[in-house]
Amino acid sequence: MSVFTPVPETVLAQWLQNYAIGRLVELKGISAGVQNSNFFVTTTLGRYVLTLFEDMPRAELPYYLHLMAHLARHGLPVPAPIANRDNEYLGTLQGKPAVLVMRLQGASDMTPDTDRCTRVGAMLAGLHLAGQSYGRRQANPRGASWRSEAAQRVRNHLPTDERALLDAELCFQSTLDCGQLPAGAIHADLFRDNVLWDGEHIGGVIDFYFAGHDTWLFDLAVTVNDWCTEADGSLNRARYDALVQAYHAERPFTAAERAAWPGMLRAAALRFWLSRALDFHLPREGEMVLVKNPHEYRDILRLHIDVPAPPLPGQV
Amino acid sequence: MSVFTPVPETVLAQWLQNYAIGRLVELKGISAGVQNSNFFVTTTLGRYVLTLFEDMPRAELPYYLHLMAHLARHGLPVPAPIANRDNEYLGTLQGKPAVLVMRLQGASDMTPDTDRCTRVGAMLAGLHLAGQSYGRRQANPRGASWRSEAAQRVRNHLPTDERALLDAELCFQSTLDCGQLPAGAIHADLFRDNVLWDGEHIGGVIDFYFAGHDTWLFDLAVTVNDWCTEADGSLNRARYDALVQAYHAERPFTAAERAAWPGMLRAAALRFWLSRALDFHLPREGEMVLVKNPHEYRDILRLHIDVPAPPLPGQV
Repeated sequence: MSVFTPVPETVLAQWLQNYAIGRLVELKGISAGVQNSNFFVTTTLGRYVLTLFEDMPRAELPYYLHLMAHLARHGLPVPAPIANRDNEYLGTLQGKPAVLVMRLQGASDMTPDTDRCTRVGAMLAGLHLAGQSYGRRQANPRGASWRSEAAQRVRNHLPTDERALLDAELCFQSTLDCGQLPAGAIHADLFRDNVLWDGEHIGGVIDFYFAGHDTWLFDLAVTVNDWCTEADGSLNRARYDALVQAYHAERPFTAAERAAWPGMLRAAALRFWLSRALDFHLPREGEMVLVKNPHEYRDILRLHIDVPAPPLPGQV
Repeated sequence: MSVFTPVPETVLAQWLQNYAIGRLVELKGISAGVQNSNFFVTTTLGRYVLTLFEDMPRAELPYYLHLMAHLARHGLPVPAPIANRDNEYLGTLQGKPAVLVMRLQGASDMTPDTDRCTRVGAMLAGLHLAGQSYGRRQANPRGASWRSEAAQRVRNHLPTDERALLDAELCFQSTLDCGQLPAGAIHADLFRDNVLWDGEHIGGVIDFYFAGHDTWLFDLAVTVNDWCTEADGSLNRARYDALVQAYHAERPFTAAERAAWPGMLRAAALRFWLSRALDFHLPREGEMVLVKNPHEYRDILRLHIDVPAPPLPGQV
């Protein structure tokens, strides 16, 4: 989250008359983040976050907004989008698609302990279960076909050893069959900075703008790769056990999922290696993105190949 | 809120499997209140309030629950009901209709200052504006026809002077025409104990189980009679001005409303005098209600007759 499109207070005050949330008290840009413009908005009646979508196709936005509304309606701490007086979530501000969502309590924790990994595992299962009754469907924007296409684009920019790793991994991934794995709406980006802690509780799960329909196991693999790894990319066994067992307690793994798990951890590592390598080697002109080191996820991928993770819990 | 129907933890833990909010951590009865059984419920994924409806017709409940959901969806701090895995708000627990709602932050303030009255006035206008797009309709359960019927039932139990007051007031009320007043979904019971303060902000507006379709002005009159009166029933001018001006700033009064205002303050006082007099003189067998002193609202009614409130703001 950052501010790329400025919003003057007078413009916002006028725009808020489309809503029933009172008058503007404070508007403050949020400097974190990479993709959209975000602001804290305080009115006489509440506290909200305003997002202006900088380059996401407008037609894709209702999937995300209605998913957030659906999950919040099922009791999960997800920022509910606010309907305006025409009963619509999505508006237009400064020429950009724009939405107000509820501002949730809490702050992210970049060094979570096992207790917090337990809560995150249970929360991810809760998101998957609540998403089962969500009616809309949109493909995971960073799913298998995106990964193949991204690999072709970045391949020639990689050093030889990385290119060999990439080719071998794509070949391995093409042998995997995910057809039997349970699937649904997934967050797909549940990193530590997207969970807000309010004391011991999860006060918020934020940033659903990579969500889509894919296997639940892919979502778990993305989450484990971030929450349960050390700085060198190796798994922390205690946090790993805590997270996957808490997930399993809410939504038991199937035999097909246990079999697919080592490959899925690799697919999830590949997805972030590729997106970071693209941002690094092929930055798009005029785009302001926080370029993250692609080596982190290359190394996580290598480690998953060399040292397969302990099996998922459940009957063998 | 109180507990009339006990809920064992094992029964609730089982029932929660219909939801996607994790496992039961704590269950605690709430002792305040008069009408339903209420509990604080903490799960691994969040904090909720559980309500078992003791004697409200099941068919009337969706109006209240969908109204709460609608207002929350419009960004107001109203307890959103939680949908279960079948996407339904209303379930059955211990043989009673039951609902889980989000638990909101804050505590009520029985001695509010003018700043808080300003916020309550603005909030009430926000509720009315957001309610304009609510699709369901159910009559105010304590509207004009209920008041006539209640007066007939309680009349002969009143001392002579009160009976004369009641007869005169009913006669006066029958001359009023509310047909030109703007109407919509109203809370109808926005007393000080139904607003939770989270610091300077309103963290929650609760207890929508007297809501219904009626004039917005009736809702404002109910609110003013509670928030802006002294212990002797007389108006506190500073709190009165703060509340009605804040409301007017969000949703300007019409000329018809300014004309109807003195009679509406009396109608709102009559409604609570009657319900408290019924509870006092004709308690229903087996019903556990907190009997409140009916004299308070009899005196507020008398004062509105003797000392009409200052006019509402706006053009004359």
